[in-house]
Amino acid sequence: MGKIYIVSISSGSSSDLSKRAIDALNESDVIVGYKGYIDLIKNVIEGKEIYSNSMRGEIERCSFAISSANEGKKVAIISSGDAGLYGMAGPIFEMADGIEIEYIPGITAAFLAASQLGAPIMHDMCTISLSDLLTPFDVIEKRLKAAAEGDFVIALYNPKSSGRQNHIETAMDIIRLYRKDTTPVGIVKNALRSGQNVKITMIKDIDFDEIDMSTTIIIGNSQTYIKNGYMVTPRGYRI
Amino acid sequence: MGKIYIVSISSGSSSDLSKRAIDALNESDVIVGYKGYIDLIKNVIEGKEIYSNSMRGEIERCSFAISSANEGKKVAIISSGDAGLYGMAGPIFEMADGIEIEYIPGITAAFLAASQLGAPIMHDMCTISLSDLLTPFDVIEKRLKAAAEGDFVIALYNPKSSGRQNHIETAMDIIRLYRKDTTPVGIVKNALRSGQNVKITMIKDIDFDEIDMSTTIIIGNSQTYIKNGYMVTPRGYRI
Repeated sequence: MGKIYIVSISSGSSSDLSKRAIDALNESDVIVGYKGYIDLIKNVIEGKEIYSNSMRGEIERCSFAISSANEGKKVAIISSGDAGLYGMAGPIFEMADGIEIEYIPGITAAFLAASQLGAPIMHDMCTISLSDLLTPFDVIEKRLKAAAEGDFVIALYNPKSSGRQNHIETAMDIIRLYRKDTTPVGIVKNALRSGQNVKITMIKDIDFDEIDMSTTIIIGNSQTYIKNGYMVTPRGYRI
Repeated sequence: MGKIYIVSISSGSSSDLSKRAIDALNESDVIVGYKGYIDLIKNVIEGKEIYSNSMRGEIERCSFAISSANEGKKVAIISSGDAGLYGMAGPIFEMADGIEIEYIPGITAAFLAASQLGAPIMHDMCTISLSDLLTPFDVIEKRLKAAAEGDFVIALYNPKSSGRQNHIETAMDIIRLYRKDTTPVGIVKNALRSGQNVKITMIKDIDFDEIDMSTTIIIGNSQTYIKNGYMVTPRGYRI
């Protein structure tokens, strides 16, 4: 019987994979994923049949995984972070019928980034992707406004790509209507991967040139402060 | 030299711990945590010095961890899910000075629960804790309203305890002002732990008696639907 494992690979480093994820990769005949993510885990999947393609090849990957499972193979389709947030879990569950599916959770980018910044999240938080490939930008703007108004800690995913250089600036223009210019902001590139770069700054001092596709941005709420070089959002304990 | 590891233990099952988390536990002289979470990982920390106490003993735990680290010990302070969301990372960074701290990320409850429901999150999401021990309830209400208005997938943490039986009903009354009565809702108790219980229902059919402290609730956005018994939020691919 075929089966699809939707495997969240977290940072991609074998230090951050769960045993459940490693076992699923070992159990699988075929590993399916975006080329860049396959490369991250190549030491864990040596000798396996691989199907990889480029960005925007998501639906092809899902079709291949589903037809392989229908042929009786065990297939692992991978996503970085958690596959259930902007990842491959959605299209697999949308497209597959009559196949056993197991979705293995992982550490989404907001928490990989947070772990390098101090304790920036801690309280009610939200994630917003700035990619308008699949979501109209007016929906994104509405969510930015709601999140800023609600004083959530905000984690921005996909802040920039070659096709959308200015979304992050537009996003920050919306957020700063509701939040002080001195609100701490954490900018983490390649969290817990080679090439990691971590910066803590304030809304007014963001250098947009430093932000790219592999960056996650965490914007503090009204209570977030900087201490000993760390970004800290209090939960509200009397300390 | 002393050191504090803030260790996210995810579900607490050794299947969901990362290697980074296991290594930190092995490396530590002392393990500090809420008694219920220490029990979950007891097979991983055999033979270690343990400091545990009850719920609401958070600040005592942090003080103990910090003074042990100041005595030169390596200390792991644990949280379920990710320690950086409603967990121990915040008070440690708030209270500690001049001690090496490493925060090891994990899988927060929203994603543990999601993995048992299908692909309920997938798009912009937020987490809201319904505990008013540390947060005034009017702040919680404001965030519920913002999250519902912004059409975020909403994960509710700490939906109920003996002191607050009705917060979850109040929360759903706010959310249903903005979302259809037939919006899918996932209710997961003890995700990926013994005693797991999973239910998919709709806003209008929630049985509040089934919800307790160890339950995480995921409320779909305006696009979420139920397919093959799974809760699925589309990202927007043409499928």
